Amino acid sequence: MQNFVFHNPVRIIFGKDVVSQLGGEVFSEAKKVLLLYGQGSIKSNGIYDQVCMSLKEAGIEWIDFPGIKPNPSITHVRSAIALCRQNGLQAVIAVGGGSVIDAGKAICAGVCYDGDVWDGFAKKATWNEALPLYTVLTISATGSEMNGASVISNQELQTKASFYSSGIFPRASWIDPSFQSSLPVGQTIFGAMDMMAHVLELYFNGTDNTDIQDYFAEGLMKTILKHLDIVLEDPGNYEARAQLVWAGTLALNGLNGAGRGPGDFSSHRIGHAISACYDLTHGATLSIVMPAWMRYVYKHDIPKFARFGREVFGFKGSDEDTASKGIHAFQEWIRKLGLPLSLVDVGIRMEAIPLIARNPSIPYPLGKICSLTVEEVEGILRLSNY
Amino acid sequence: MQNFVFHNPVRIIFGKDVVSQLGGEVFSEAKKVLLLYGQGSIKSNGIYDQVCMSLKEAGIEWIDFPGIKPNPSITHVRSAIALCRQNGLQAVIAVGGGSVIDAGKAICAGVCYDGDVWDGFAKKATWNEALPLYTVLTISATGSEMNGASVISNQELQTKASFYSSGIFPRASWIDPSFQSSLPVGQTIFGAMDMMAHVLELYFNGTDNTDIQDYFAEGLMKTILKHLDIVLEDPGNYEARAQLVWAGTLALNGLNGAGRGPGDFSSHRIGHAISACYDLTHGATLSIVMPAWMRYVYKHDIPKFARFGREVFGFKGSDEDTASKGIHAFQEWIRKLGLPLSLVDVGIRMEAIPLIARNPSIPYPLGKICSLTVEEVEGILRLSNY
Repeated sequence: MQNFVFHNPVRIIFGKDVVSQLGGEVFSEAKKVLLLYGQGSIKSNGIYDQVCMSLKEAGIEWIDFPGIKPNPSITHVRSAIALCRQNGLQAVIAVGGGSVIDAGKAICAGVCYDGDVWDGFAKKATWNEALPLYTVLTISATGSEMNGASVISNQELQTKASFYSSGIFPRASWIDPSFQSSLPVGQTIFGAMDMMAHVLELYFNGTDNTDIQDYFAEGLMKTILKHLDIVLEDPGNYEARAQLVWAGTLALNGLNGAGRGPGDFSSHRIGHAISACYDLTHGATLSIVMPAWMRYVYKHDIPKFARFGREVFGFKGSDEDTASKGIHAFQEWIRKLGLPLSLVDVGIRMEAIPLIARNPSIPYPLGKICSLTVEEVEGILRLSNY
Repeated sequence: MQNFVFHNPVRIIFGKDVVSQLGGEVFSEAKKVLLLYGQGSIKSNGIYDQVCMSLKEAGIEWIDFPGIKPNPSITHVRSAIALCRQNGLQAVIAVGGGSVIDAGKAICAGVCYDGDVWDGFAKKATWNEALPLYTVLTISATGSEMNGASVISNQELQTKASFYSSGIFPRASWIDPSFQSSLPVGQTIFGAMDMMAHVLELYFNGTDNTDIQDYFAEGLMKTILKHLDIVLEDPGNYEARAQLVWAGTLALNGLNGAGRGPGDFSSHRIGHAISACYDLTHGATLSIVMPAWMRYVYKHDIPKFARFGREVFGFKGSDEDTASKGIHAFQEWIRKLGLPLSLVDVGIRMEAIPLIARNPSIPYPLGKICSLTVEEVEGILRLSNY
């Protein structure tokens, strides 16, 4: 096991009807806040009303900032920072999925930073200070509700970059799984794909002596596979939804990685490059890249890929055989869910591959399980089509 | 899944040679501290010197308070509180296992409380404020290094009582698994017994829809079983020790319980009663009580006991059959480790059973998987002898 520091102070308030407590908890730190959200679905499904009622009851004033989109843009973040400053807002309440929460983190840090907020993502600044951030989770996928990471897109520079700091942990996150029962099926599926990818990026990173982390990761994957099936059959099944939702939070809250060293994250980086060039949903980029990446790299750690096949999918046999069967089962799971498995599936032509592989979202040399070159990333992207 | 709040802000610094960083981190909060430890083993194995060197380098003054014993006593806690007050000490550094850390928590809370510190354990006071506590873990067992619980014995009242508050979480805990390679074999074994008991108290608590928590718990148990074996063969095996040590911390840091509701903790309570009457080591009370408790209560949740037999020990067959085999395998594991399995094994006579069952350490009705009466607890204690 590698040396590690684990510290995750985010307070999670999980369960049915928990959002009514939000205003009371926020009040101790802020009386005037920014209410950040996406494209309005929270208004039609009643979540917006619940949040506003709780704020009102606690005597908290707020200014709305709607319109945060998937792959949230630095332009929106800059506007929100200006609004917070002009109005002396003391905290941000982000109501949404990973995009809204990631934008919330950038806004909270940006308000306390004198320069341009992109500096943090361009690795020109480090943030240890930020406005308090509170989140209300409405789509489980990125795990952003319980970590210190933020991923923001810069359309001008055609890139997508991430920032991590313990200074931008949310103070608290309210997670009511019943909020997600009315989600479009596609969003539940893309979310589950993202969760699986987070677990796998840490699981396949080339380190040894990580039994406890591996059992934990396999438990998360088995939970996702089993309870996604139930939720797709019966979207209102609270118990299965709660399992899926909590798995999403635990997949990327630091625990799964503690003792492993950094995750591989090749698939995420290549996926970010696709999103930066084509504005494709994060989950779709992962379903395209990840199986191809597995087929390309598995020879570098056959015993671990065999463990994956055995523990997650229940295959028996030789390591080489079980490794291949596990990768195939993962690919078939993606196919069964109707997610894209190749660039062709989403209308991206083979000719675009060199451009994607050279997008600045990918830092070379790439990956942990093995070190990938530009040409190898091109190879992985080509492999997705076969 | 039940509604829950999960919040664990303890900073864990885990790995080889991490203790050298201690002084630097403590310095930001305290310049004059109490150095709390047990019966001197930390002086012979070099840990004391490492801690002192780090404090000295950071310019931190300290006063030694040695002599904390297993089942730490309220008398020692009171003396240490007086010492902290007389000398204006600003923090406590607890170097040891669960007893020293539990005493540290009581001291930190007691210094900030006007009344007698036992009030917290007698449920007459609630503590939200405490001196900062830092811990250096030298024996893995109780998980106290990453939770807000403290268990203290009161010899005058012949009782052992616990207190839980988020106000007494350690600020940070340094966990260097290599510190434990020179532990007496018995302490490693008792520690592993305690870890298993923590996982099981939460696992068998009669709640449903806890797949993700169950996978996590089963992973912890498989880790403990596997890596304890390796460590007993080869006490200096760092990698196996690290697995065992991290399992001990995760077994009772709140995560395993989140969403399950309270654990059963019947075995712990009955064990506390034995300790209160006979000053027996905590791990030994658990090895006596837990298998007997399982045999007594398993009919109340056969599917869960069957899952235990299947997932942890790999048995196949009907639920009733797998449940019985799992309990038997657990009992045989204890026997193989040389731990006591009955009151007779530790020289406690059957005539003592009514007294133990009526010790104030046991709150009636007892337990979650089913509700036990005094007579039933007597039955469990008698069963341990068969």
